[in-house]
Amino acid sequence: MFATNTSTLLPSMYAEASGRPDRLAALHFHIPVWSANVVDVMPHPGTSTETTELLVAFARRLGQIPIRMRRESIGYVFNAVYTAMNRAAITLVANDVASVEDVDRAWMAIMKTPFGPFGALDDVGIDTAWHITEYWAGVTGDVQLRTNADWLRGYVDSGRTGAKAGEGFYRYPNPAYAEPGFVEGT
Amino acid sequence: MFATNTSTLLPSMYAEASGRPDRLAALHFHIPVWSANVVDVMPHPGTSTETTELLVAFARRLGQIPIRMRRESIGYVFNAVYTAMNRAAITLVANDVASVEDVDRAWMAIMKTPFGPFGALDDVGIDTAWHITEYWAGVTGDVQLRTNADWLRGYVDSGRTGAKAGEGFYRYPNPAYAEPGFVEGT
Repeated sequence: MFATNTSTLLPSMYAEASGRPDRLAALHFHIPVWSANVVDVMPHPGTSTETTELLVAFARRLGQIPIRMRRESIGYVFNAVYTAMNRAAITLVANDVASVEDVDRAWMAIMKTPFGPFGALDDVGIDTAWHITEYWAGVTGDVQLRTNADWLRGYVDSGRTGAKAGEGFYRYPNPAYAEPGFVEGT
Repeated sequence: MFATNTSTLLPSMYAEASGRPDRLAALHFHIPVWSANVVDVMPHPGTSTETTELLVAFARRLGQIPIRMRRESIGYVFNAVYTAMNRAAITLVANDVASVEDVDRAWMAIMKTPFGPFGALDDVGIDTAWHITEYWAGVTGDVQLRTNADWLRGYVDSGRTGAKAGEGFYRYPNPAYAEPGFVEGT
């Protein structure tokens, strides 16, 4: 059995080249920053049911939560939703519609989360977000993605890549969004 | 001073017709289901600074958290990000990539929230989500939005409009996502 942790390729792209397509599927772990044991199991059209079931069972033995995908899809499950959320949040600020703080404030107040999209991006790394956005801006030619990538690049070029650098959208170790009164805007 | 709570129109569309464009802006409250005191203050290009500041102060006097928008944008701030998240989540299930439960499970495990996109949609109302998706599918002609709208319509047509109806993506009053072990998938 083969398994791949790729984030951008689909198993069907190299299923035949693997020589054993029925035993190939993607097993996608999430980056450690999320501290969550979630694994996507993504078969391609030629993956055998046995292989999928083995990977689901394998993920469970590792103490992971397996997410069963029924077909290939770029971005897996969580990442597809998370990327869409980030794209919309970044678009608002890159287009000067609202501030980083106001986007996070609204999200935190309504969704009852301890961080908003930009606070989370500081943990993921703005350099990582920029690489992904830059890649898709190039692949799709989308004008808004180009604007978003260039806006993110401003942070990367000035070394503000997020929590690990001491500064990103917020300053660390005590980011403003974690201070009392942030959500209320007082 | 005029204020509008419209969700789909922009103030500039009727600023001149109002007769007092400098005193017009959008003041957008969120639907009660979110139980959050967040208000978007959205000026159009002709709104005076005084009007914007009055609305921000007015929102504060109401005990609301004002979100200052610097320019018009469809969907305001929270809704723009929330709609993008929902669209991606609905796309995964409408395209048969993953189940409602697995999308919510992955989101809840990683984002540490007590509900996922579909649990939240049951509270918003699947009929509301369908109306919005149907509207934008019509306006844009987007093929994926059409698929998503038709998929949502299946729930609406069968009366499963969410928590208020006793059934939506989950059954109420004790939805599966709130049961112990749901996130782990056990």
